[in-house]
Amino acid sequence: MSKNYLLIKAIRKEKIDRIPVWIMRQAGRYLKEYNQVRQNYDFMEMCKTPEAIVEVSVQPVNIIGVDAGIIFSDILVPVEAMGVKVTFEKNHGPKLDYKIKDLKDVENLKIPNPTIDMKFIGDSIKMFKQKLPKDKPLIGFSGAPWTLSSYILEGGSSKNFTKIKSFMFNKEKIFLLLMEKITETIIKHLIYQIESGADIIQIFDTWAGVLAPNDYEKYAFYYQKKIISSIKSKYDIPIILYINGSGNILEKMVETGADALSIDWMTDLAYAKSKVGDKVSLQGNMDPCYLYGNREFVKNKVIETINKFGKETGYIFNLGHGILPDIPVENVKTMVETVKKY
Amino acid sequence: MSKNYLLIKAIRKEKIDRIPVWIMRQAGRYLKEYNQVRQNYDFMEMCKTPEAIVEVSVQPVNIIGVDAGIIFSDILVPVEAMGVKVTFEKNHGPKLDYKIKDLKDVENLKIPNPTIDMKFIGDSIKMFKQKLPKDKPLIGFSGAPWTLSSYILEGGSSKNFTKIKSFMFNKEKIFLLLMEKITETIIKHLIYQIESGADIIQIFDTWAGVLAPNDYEKYAFYYQKKIISSIKSKYDIPIILYINGSGNILEKMVETGADALSIDWMTDLAYAKSKVGDKVSLQGNMDPCYLYGNREFVKNKVIETINKFGKETGYIFNLGHGILPDIPVENVKTMVETVKKY
Repeated sequence: MSKNYLLIKAIRKEKIDRIPVWIMRQAGRYLKEYNQVRQNYDFMEMCKTPEAIVEVSVQPVNIIGVDAGIIFSDILVPVEAMGVKVTFEKNHGPKLDYKIKDLKDVENLKIPNPTIDMKFIGDSIKMFKQKLPKDKPLIGFSGAPWTLSSYILEGGSSKNFTKIKSFMFNKEKIFLLLMEKITETIIKHLIYQIESGADIIQIFDTWAGVLAPNDYEKYAFYYQKKIISSIKSKYDIPIILYINGSGNILEKMVETGADALSIDWMTDLAYAKSKVGDKVSLQGNMDPCYLYGNREFVKNKVIETINKFGKETGYIFNLGHGILPDIPVENVKTMVETVKKY
Repeated sequence: MSKNYLLIKAIRKEKIDRIPVWIMRQAGRYLKEYNQVRQNYDFMEMCKTPEAIVEVSVQPVNIIGVDAGIIFSDILVPVEAMGVKVTFEKNHGPKLDYKIKDLKDVENLKIPNPTIDMKFIGDSIKMFKQKLPKDKPLIGFSGAPWTLSSYILEGGSSKNFTKIKSFMFNKEKIFLLLMEKITETIIKHLIYQIESGADIIQIFDTWAGVLAPNDYEKYAFYYQKKIISSIKSKYDIPIILYINGSGNILEKMVETGADALSIDWMTDLAYAKSKVGDKVSLQGNMDPCYLYGNREFVKNKVIETINKFGKETGYIFNLGHGILPDIPVENVKTMVETVKKY
């Protein structure tokens, strides 16, 4: 495995010539080429079709010129493989249909064998690797247990996360078993991605920022750490951890053993660097909504963002959250060009 | 105006015998007595009917035993008085119907004269004051310009605040005029509440936490400060400022001149105290979802929350956000009793 990828050198704080850049959800709806593929599939079917996965995964690398490819998938793919029914209705978020009332309902969930139940992931990564330029690493990813269990227990996206929290506080034993099973599933899922060719891993615990800090430690951090240490005990692979709304828990996040933290836009990057920049690398953190501005505005915001970190290694440019579907593609190109020229 | 209210003494960091407690949205749907009144009115009509306002405002004081009354209203009441159509459909959030395309659309918004256009507020406060026990202060409140303009520009509640941000970044001149007009409206609205008898003011910039810190300063902080300094130049009244997701901007919030900051549950209260506790008082910050637990759990969480602040004056117990509609009322009573006995 080549270790000379720009992105990996930045994560390892080695000397680099310029700042690397990729975009969360870079294979997505803001690209007309993505939408052309997407219209041929049901969403979850598309996530299981290697040809489609590879086609849309390659698009942002070729069209936008980002410095890494990330395999197109959805964080709910392993959840479905566990036995939870997942559907996406047009213009709506995911709908999950699996009622958990007692321990038996959790026991009935399967821990998938990814080489069989998610073979399409391994096949896609191998094909994607062939199509990626040799100087660009492939990012594999997974959701984290708290975020995934929130989808299961809420039945989809949520505003106040009342169902999962109520469950957590009232049926803790069942909840913790669910978390353990998801954790085991994710470890296998990530290992399969690594063994298929992923060069970097990003873990998304997107909604763990809605937990009080004590609860973050107990219900999210513990499992993040378990996943990261399991992977690290077997593979020397860089791991990036993302939580939306993480400004208050950055120091705790470092203790997970992640190599880099992906910072949301509500946290000042200079502040994040001052807190944890000596221990980990940082990724982020431009407000995705800045891409609604004109090209000059986008350029200025990119430069402002980078200036917060400063001219050092240990930094990857990215947005503070996933790119939004209605962003003009020209602005995305301007963003990436501005980073590359910095 | 009596200054001996427990709540005001806590805000002023005077010696107190026990910690005061009230609840954001304490006059609300978790009370069956509230729902009995509510079913007789359209929501916005109820917000304009002093008899209904006073009836539901008194309820939590009598039933739950909180240490302050807050006038029942909605942050959109002054927005409607500006000329924006506001409707609430059953089980949905607010719907606002006012298109802003150019300066003229903002110029056409009215700056209401509260003594005429929102006379029901003054009347309600006077009546409520008569019904409140003499030892309990009356809290007046208002939304802040960023949050209110988000409702106008998004047309209601929002997930990603893409419309207001896109507007802000592309039509800044129009946006700033809107903010100025809302600011002027709010100042008048709050002054009218004070002159009608409010003893404390809380300002809710609930959604300002979704801004990048630089944008918070430019688009939210500036107007919060303007409102607070306008009020403070005329009245010696304690002002509490609430923002959801404010862990990263606490020090800036202090510069608004607020006497107390109301802290959300994602921020550790001990951390908030260490950051700003010498400059302002603090209010908060129990996760509203803890009230889904059993009574023992609620008790423990109340004590944990208070322990984070410690046994000093300068603290008001509250939730970290508004109370949710489906919370068991017995748990709310347990929470309040536990604070009082601490």
